[in-house]
Amino acid sequence: MEAARALHARLTKPAGSLGALEELSVRLAGLAGECPPPLPEPVAVAVFAGDHGVHAQGVSPWPQEVTGQMVANFLAGGAVVNAFARQVGASVTVVDVGVLDDLGWGDEGGGSGPIPAPRSSGEEQRRRLVAAKVRAGTRDMTAEAALTREEVSAALEAGARVAFKLVDDGARALVTGDMGIANTTPAAALIAAFTGADAEVVTGRGTGIDDYRYARKVAVVRAALNLHKPDPADPVGVLAAVGGLEHAAIAGFILGGASRRVPVILDGVIAVSAALAAAALAPDAVGAMVAGHRSAEPGATVALAHLGLDPLIDLGLRLGEGTGAVLAVPIVASAVRVLHEVATFDSAGVSEK
Amino acid sequence: MEAARALHARLTKPAGSLGALEELSVRLAGLAGECPPPLPEPVAVAVFAGDHGVHAQGVSPWPQEVTGQMVANFLAGGAVVNAFARQVGASVTVVDVGVLDDLGWGDEGGGSGPIPAPRSSGEEQRRRLVAAKVRAGTRDMTAEAALTREEVSAALEAGARVAFKLVDDGARALVTGDMGIANTTPAAALIAAFTGADAEVVTGRGTGIDDYRYARKVAVVRAALNLHKPDPADPVGVLAAVGGLEHAAIAGFILGGASRRVPVILDGVIAVSAALAAAALAPDAVGAMVAGHRSAEPGATVALAHLGLDPLIDLGLRLGEGTGAVLAVPIVASAVRVLHEVATFDSAGVSEK
Repeated sequence: MEAARALHARLTKPAGSLGALEELSVRLAGLAGECPPPLPEPVAVAVFAGDHGVHAQGVSPWPQEVTGQMVANFLAGGAVVNAFARQVGASVTVVDVGVLDDLGWGDEGGGSGPIPAPRSSGEEQRRRLVAAKVRAGTRDMTAEAALTREEVSAALEAGARVAFKLVDDGARALVTGDMGIANTTPAAALIAAFTGADAEVVTGRGTGIDDYRYARKVAVVRAALNLHKPDPADPVGVLAAVGGLEHAAIAGFILGGASRRVPVILDGVIAVSAALAAAALAPDAVGAMVAGHRSAEPGATVALAHLGLDPLIDLGLRLGEGTGAVLAVPIVASAVRVLHEVATFDSAGVSEK
Repeated sequence: MEAARALHARLTKPAGSLGALEELSVRLAGLAGECPPPLPEPVAVAVFAGDHGVHAQGVSPWPQEVTGQMVANFLAGGAVVNAFARQVGASVTVVDVGVLDDLGWGDEGGGSGPIPAPRSSGEEQRRRLVAAKVRAGTRDMTAEAALTREEVSAALEAGARVAFKLVDDGARALVTGDMGIANTTPAAALIAAFTGADAEVVTGRGTGIDDYRYARKVAVVRAALNLHKPDPADPVGVLAAVGGLEHAAIAGFILGGASRRVPVILDGVIAVSAALAAAALAPDAVGAMVAGHRSAEPGATVALAHLGLDPLIDLGLRLGEGTGAVLAVPIVASAVRVLHEVATFDSAGVSEK
């Protein structure tokens, strides 16, 4: 990190003129343990999908079957995350850690392989499904614990394995994605549990709900917290009580990437709720986290503040899938490129002030 | 624009979940007059360079020769804008509209052609110099008008010609860049003149100046405004009184791009001060403007508010060169891609809420 700061001071630009990108590049040098750090390419997006027993409480207007339908959409290349990933040349891996439907495709570590993208202009996108279902959806956290501790461990390990495989296959940046109808409800509960914030402060309108359903959602989050009284010092217990399988898997994915010293670009509220769990399990993992964007969900801002991370993009997105994080990929790469490619005052013959 | 809004409602995502990107894609459909609008690629960055007589007033700690030295750095591919442009596959055209030094390279519309990039991994970057010097630097605006009306017209036309040439050569998005030691001083004066804001509100610390020099810079901006009392209803007169050659050329570049219905992604405070002039000359040109980022310079925020534009990126950059705008290129492209590539609920077999 010191070497990166010293290099910045010699590059042909006024000191500090790249704002947040300078500190980002310094952090990534620290993560890699070298200056300049490796360019964060190729990029691999992993979209973790799961369903939620708490859907029965009426927290979402969308039918639960949409989770599995969207998995098919990701694999066909038709979702927003696919379009955004094509823009930056990223692969998209979909991981079934807890979808209710029996998707019937793919095998652990294998899957359907590359599928041609809708547009044929040399932009084929590597996409595949990893079958790592821990169980078909969580239990209803307002009635019982959403998961057992063993199920949480299995999901954490599934996420870490995906990170290891993607890095082994060459990825030098990982992007978190999620799909799961109703999954902003466990995200809100996780954020409340880990930060101590009130249910109302961290609960948002997700994909868009009316006032009646919003009040119900806040009550559901509060009821689950009151029932389980999750202890933030026991992150596996918190994930078991009020989490989701994709939340646990993303926490494992972050820890897997961090252990390989690869930056993990966090998407929105699901990702940052999972990041709180990852940070509770291994505080140093925060050094691998890059906040891709600030979700419109209020809990995201609470979680980012708790993690001490500033997001790169703040455009009111609230889609999930990894979309906000993928938008940030070129910014992260640009920050690192500066340390690789920009001339020094000496080498370029530019006068200093 | 109506067609784009209707299409958004059918795509496999919750309504409005892409936040500011949805309205951006709608605006670009309106600009193009078709839905979906063309993908904004290839991208061409034009860096307009000029010097400033007001440098003699001690508003910048950098020697004036740095303007010409940085032109050489851009052409060698060693500046930050080159690194960022490589990330997004954009060409970089440097336009000498008013550099003090006789650069001695290139010809109108021609120049040095492609130069290999420092990194050789298939990322060669098209770079060239356009010689369009109107005069060698402006006059000192605290003593006399910086430019004549004829010089302003020549710079406006030079900028428009660059836009036409880049679009004729295939560019489907234009990015504004600038280089000119001391050029945040005329930018502040232009913003004050067009918006009515006070000199102190719009003047910033540019590339980094101390309190003494900052107070001097504010006094210089105020003195120039008091001397010329520029009339915002006469944009050529404003540019002549307190502008710069790169500011005028960027205004022409914006108008050139707008007249071809190509989006023009605005960089920081120099670009938005020029955009105020362009909007005063042709209000409809605002429809072609995309605010790439919010510069740390306070005048940029004042100008963006006056134009009614929300920036895509807000990371505290204050470098210029086009750097902040280039970072926004993949965001703009991603917004348009959604309308080209994302499946509808019907086509993907996804249930609606």
